[in-house]
Amino acid sequence: MAPCAVASGRMGGVTTSAAGAPGTLVLLRHGESEWNKANLFTGWVDVELSEKGRAEAARGGQLLAEHGLLPDVLHTSLLRRAITTAELALATADRQWIPVRRSWRLNERHYGALQGKDKAATLAEYGEEQFMVWRRSYSTPPPPIEAGSEYSQDADPRYAFLPPEVRPATECLADVVVRMLPYWYDAIVPDLRSGATVLVAAHGNSLRALVKHLDGMGEDEVVGLNIPTGVPLRYDLDADLRPLKPGGEYLDPEAAAAAIEAVKNQGKK
Amino acid sequence: MAPCAVASGRMGGVTTSAAGAPGTLVLLRHGESEWNKANLFTGWVDVELSEKGRAEAARGGQLLAEHGLLPDVLHTSLLRRAITTAELALATADRQWIPVRRSWRLNERHYGALQGKDKAATLAEYGEEQFMVWRRSYSTPPPPIEAGSEYSQDADPRYAFLPPEVRPATECLADVVVRMLPYWYDAIVPDLRSGATVLVAAHGNSLRALVKHLDGMGEDEVVGLNIPTGVPLRYDLDADLRPLKPGGEYLDPEAAAAAIEAVKNQGKK
Repeated sequence: MAPCAVASGRMGGVTTSAAGAPGTLVLLRHGESEWNKANLFTGWVDVELSEKGRAEAARGGQLLAEHGLLPDVLHTSLLRRAITTAELALATADRQWIPVRRSWRLNERHYGALQGKDKAATLAEYGEEQFMVWRRSYSTPPPPIEAGSEYSQDADPRYAFLPPEVRPATECLADVVVRMLPYWYDAIVPDLRSGATVLVAAHGNSLRALVKHLDGMGEDEVVGLNIPTGVPLRYDLDADLRPLKPGGEYLDPEAAAAAIEAVKNQGKK
Repeated sequence: MAPCAVASGRMGGVTTSAAGAPGTLVLLRHGESEWNKANLFTGWVDVELSEKGRAEAARGGQLLAEHGLLPDVLHTSLLRRAITTAELALATADRQWIPVRRSWRLNERHYGALQGKDKAATLAEYGEEQFMVWRRSYSTPPPPIEAGSEYSQDADPRYAFLPPEVRPATECLADVVVRMLPYWYDAIVPDLRSGATVLVAAHGNSLRALVKHLDGMGEDEVVGLNIPTGVPLRYDLDADLRPLKPGGEYLDPEAAAAAIEAVKNQGKK
């Protein structure tokens, strides 16, 4: 068998037959993590999925397969709860073999000094108003995490290539929008332009930032937006990469509605 | 936080501080699959790891962590037994976040018409001489698989982009060398040149093909080469990407020796 010029190059690219047509975007928020379960602020701390979270991920993959919505390429954050969610979902959908790209730009919002703190204790200590500002205001970040703190990522090799001025010590949602959008334009959009079905496995706030952009939501509007875990959210896009249906479509609308209720009540344990 | 020009590009690349120095190559053969256990010829059939295989993969990751041999980038085949092995090993070594690339060029040898056949029954039917030629000769492939056969990959979407003249219907080890080497030169070598520690998670025969190349083995020599499952094999390379120590170094030499014995006895069940 002679090597073939067409196939001899790097095999990392996405190949579809629908070049030029806008692809389909599928967003998947990771399933429950050990710290979701324990009701702790997580942010950039790299915690594992819980058993429930692993089951949610597999269920997400089953929904993809049932809907024939088979990803051609995967984008993930650098955090294991999103990576494992994608791995389990794709294993269930028989798509483990697709190309993968990862970026810190898809990471969860950095929760600053709140990382590692109990949500209910924080609510009790600071009161509901301050608590809700930190959790939900668009432009007010929590206090920055101290350098060398147990829950900072100062020594984490996965961020070693990031110049210090880009490494967050805390973030509000506005910060997440600013650091996420370059990855959307530079990495995800080209895959969509190729006609691919693109799976983005990420986090509550990086996905809220993306949905804000896609749906053209205002700052006031996005603060009320909740994205459920483990339920794939499908966006079909027009030629300008705007949603044909604002808000997209959850593959399991009933599970999505129930999960959104549960997220709203976090911290009120 | 302003977006930073340095970090705004695609994040798929490998970044290390040792640019220019030759990196370290780590080869990992997937753990036991369901069909290894059932003693069937597998080739390009996409079978799952067995529970034992999953444990071997995690043990491989533990060995990487214990030796401080932490991969900066992963290359896998398109087959789930190699992909899952890498995922489990990297999860154990806390390196799930590294960049990944995959290629059909790292796939197992295509076993032609033998795919799906029982090894012991094949041995009994064709006799040891023919059996060993198909398993071990360098340049004699098994008969090609029939189009439309239950165990062909005609309709498999992961190979849809491959022109028909490149899609094997059977392969001998010489064929694997020819189709594997372009990926070595075009995808793996540049990562090694960047100074990275490169993990290649693949298969008995694609790794034999690579080791033949690295160690400059003759055709007669490579037919006697066995690579054990689940034990990382480390190659430190000189400036010409030749091994400093021929044959490399297994991270667990005793387990490697025992596993090589077990591979030799396959088919003699």
